[in-house]
Amino acid sequence: MSSRPSAVVFDVNETLSDMAPMAQRFADVGAPEHLAKLWFATVLRDGFALAAARPQQPFAKLAAGALRTLLSSLDLGRDLDAAIDHIMTGFSQLPVHADVADGARSLRDAGQRLVTLSNGASQVADQLLTRAGVRDCFDLLLSVEDAAAWKPAREAYEYAAGACGAALTDMMLVAVHPWDIHGAGRVGMETVWINRTGAPYPDYFTPPGHTVPSLTDLAVRLA
Amino acid sequence: MSSRPSAVVFDVNETLSDMAPMAQRFADVGAPEHLAKLWFATVLRDGFALAAARPQQPFAKLAAGALRTLLSSLDLGRDLDAAIDHIMTGFSQLPVHADVADGARSLRDAGQRLVTLSNGASQVADQLLTRAGVRDCFDLLLSVEDAAAWKPAREAYEYAAGACGAALTDMMLVAVHPWDIHGAGRVGMETVWINRTGAPYPDYFTPPGHTVPSLTDLAVRLA
Repeated sequence: MSSRPSAVVFDVNETLSDMAPMAQRFADVGAPEHLAKLWFATVLRDGFALAAARPQQPFAKLAAGALRTLLSSLDLGRDLDAAIDHIMTGFSQLPVHADVADGARSLRDAGQRLVTLSNGASQVADQLLTRAGVRDCFDLLLSVEDAAAWKPAREAYEYAAGACGAALTDMMLVAVHPWDIHGAGRVGMETVWINRTGAPYPDYFTPPGHTVPSLTDLAVRLA
Repeated sequence: MSSRPSAVVFDVNETLSDMAPMAQRFADVGAPEHLAKLWFATVLRDGFALAAARPQQPFAKLAAGALRTLLSSLDLGRDLDAAIDHIMTGFSQLPVHADVADGARSLRDAGQRLVTLSNGASQVADQLLTRAGVRDCFDLLLSVEDAAAWKPAREAYEYAAGACGAALTDMMLVAVHPWDIHGAGRVGMETVWINRTGAPYPDYFTPPGHTVPSLTDLAVRLA
């Protein structure tokens, strides 16, 4: 593992944020809790469809639209727009995972340059990291909304390299999502898969360069 | 609606096949029935990630790999490989929707040229249509495995146009999936959305040219 990449680029949704509270948001509006995972997979499915077919659309538009499709077949016993708002509000108020604050501080204290690159809005990352008290650890908060396409399309990572003023081959992408590891690996970035759950890595994606169970472990490995 | 397109191109999974029996396959192996929908969304999510980042991989590889990831976190009380096999076997034995056989025969009897274009293997479509007794209604069974990328990437539809010897603007794509309607519309195909459930069409995809509730209704509209 490179000890000092030009930038350590973090995915945001699920890599930094803990989406577990979303299940309760679905329950709050009378929907099954397990729809939270189907919803997020649907948002990414449709976002990646647009990454393949273009043009891209904002994450929040897909998130709300996919909710509308999923919830419209249920008898919620309440206003659909209010239900969508309640769930979307929950998404904007997520906590970070338990290892994120210590991990980010250790990395920053070791002199690493930390950046986020999200398929969502930069504002969501800003608020997430501010709530967690580690906003100051991050140099840049980047969004594919300023690129030509969502990750894992090549253009998303190239945009990040341009914003960082660095070569892709000198940058490290850190994510929990194998599709993000794949896309970053394809464009020459060093890749670190955060595997908090012990799940197997899919055999159809480019494997990660390194695998660690948490951001704190990443900080130890980079030290 | 064009009364006589050069080819009426059908999506296969969920457009022709009825995936409802997949829920029981998950129950058979000790997994929650609702994982069937999460699994299929995950397969498409990862397939579209590869359509955006390349290279593509076969549908069956993604289907089995996504199952392994989903099921590995559960205590099934049985062999994981056997569970994957049981579910994959179910996928290869699905029935068609109730409107498909009559709709396909009506379209064929009216002189339409019917073709399938699947992100899955042609063999799966062949077996599906043979079981339903309507294999003879279809002229060509196409798979993106012979193209550069899965639908909704442009190359998938261009491959179908080449195989049919037709211009994309003279062809009609019929699908239940908004992402497929979007991709086909982007390359100039006429599009027909089969909406069997009354679900709203997502506002982030190119809308369909036409919407019908079934293949039999499509046959009436084209007559």
